Amino acid sequence: MSTSKTIDFYFDFSSPYSYIAAERIEAIAAQGGRTVRYCPVLLGIVFKQMGIPPLVHIPLKGEYSIRDFVRSAHFYGLAFTFPDPFPIASQAAARATLMLRDSGSSQVGEFVRAVFRAFFVKGQDITQTEVLARIGTQLGLDGTAIAAAHGDEVWKTALKTSVEESMARKVFGAPFFFVDGEGFWGNDRLDQALRWMQTGPF
Amino acid sequence: MSTSKTIDFYFDFSSPYSYIAAERIEAIAAQGGRTVRYCPVLLGIVFKQMGIPPLVHIPLKGEYSIRDFVRSAHFYGLAFTFPDPFPIASQAAARATLMLRDSGSSQVGEFVRAVFRAFFVKGQDITQTEVLARIGTQLGLDGTAIAAAHGDEVWKTALKTSVEESMARKVFGAPFFFVDGEGFWGNDRLDQALRWMQTGPF
Repeated sequence: MSTSKTIDFYFDFSSPYSYIAAERIEAIAAQGGRTVRYCPVLLGIVFKQMGIPPLVHIPLKGEYSIRDFVRSAHFYGLAFTFPDPFPIASQAAARATLMLRDSGSSQVGEFVRAVFRAFFVKGQDITQTEVLARIGTQLGLDGTAIAAAHGDEVWKTALKTSVEESMARKVFGAPFFFVDGEGFWGNDRLDQALRWMQTGPF
Repeated sequence: MSTSKTIDFYFDFSSPYSYIAAERIEAIAAQGGRTVRYCPVLLGIVFKQMGIPPLVHIPLKGEYSIRDFVRSAHFYGLAFTFPDPFPIASQAAARATLMLRDSGSSQVGEFVRAVFRAFFVKGQDITQTEVLARIGTQLGLDGTAIAAAHGDEVWKTALKTSVEESMARKVFGAPFFFVDGEGFWGNDRLDQALRWMQTGPF
């Protein structure tokens, strides 16, 4: 659960800036003396509710963003290949993540990063439970359980709850972070979140 | 004019993130071995063409952005008081800036920052030519010429040209920067623009 010792990290597996943030957040949390609470959400639902199109479909801004994804990844020393198809439905990966998190796995962050890399570096189809199972197995996790999470009412409900929680906290995009109730939107706000953790409100 | 030795800085005097960028850009340009070309534009025209509302009017994102303006300013050690009314028509300030720039004044950056501070720190009404004249006079500039730029066909045309130029370069928000033809959107991309100036494309 969210505590004063966590940084709550809301992300969507279909969000390029979430991928970049996922690669950075453990180091930043450690510098801030916190642990990361991984909170997968579904941006599509949020965007529909707000009546806005996905970023890449916005005139001018969409075209720019595709360039910015690559450049921002490289800026942080990360590989990036724009996936096709994009965006994708990230329910299966999100439910597997919640299953790992709520089962107390110490490898949830590792799994999240492996799934992001599978999609944004290797171009794998992370909507498929077999792909998620293989990623999990390679990390020494239970691949069968990871694949099964997608169809399990428990993790379906957990994902619904995660999305509702994010909406209640006014999360309108991803990545989104909370430090002691203060919300920060975007990979490019991790520097501000870090200062907030280290020296308090400013 | 735009050259390989400039960083082209597109901004609107009504844009909080443009204010923050204006306070940072001279130091960053110097680190990158460049000079700043000040290019005032009118975001309202761009937004209308794109069919999008001003940032602060977007549900959830608008409310967040007002918090983020203050926090981002403080993060960089800058004062910030959300002005009322907001946003404002920035034509008069933009035309005065173009007059100074195209007359070869060495104080254009100084004037730009003084106008931004008048609006975002002191809450002054920078739509008024008398206010702009006083700001100019305090910097040792010709206040009468600064006030007169607003009604002068030459600077009206110059501003139209600046807006058209920005649209041709696909500027869809502010601040927006160009380094050797590469576009960077947002105050939070100045770090990437700096690396581009220092080490080339990445």
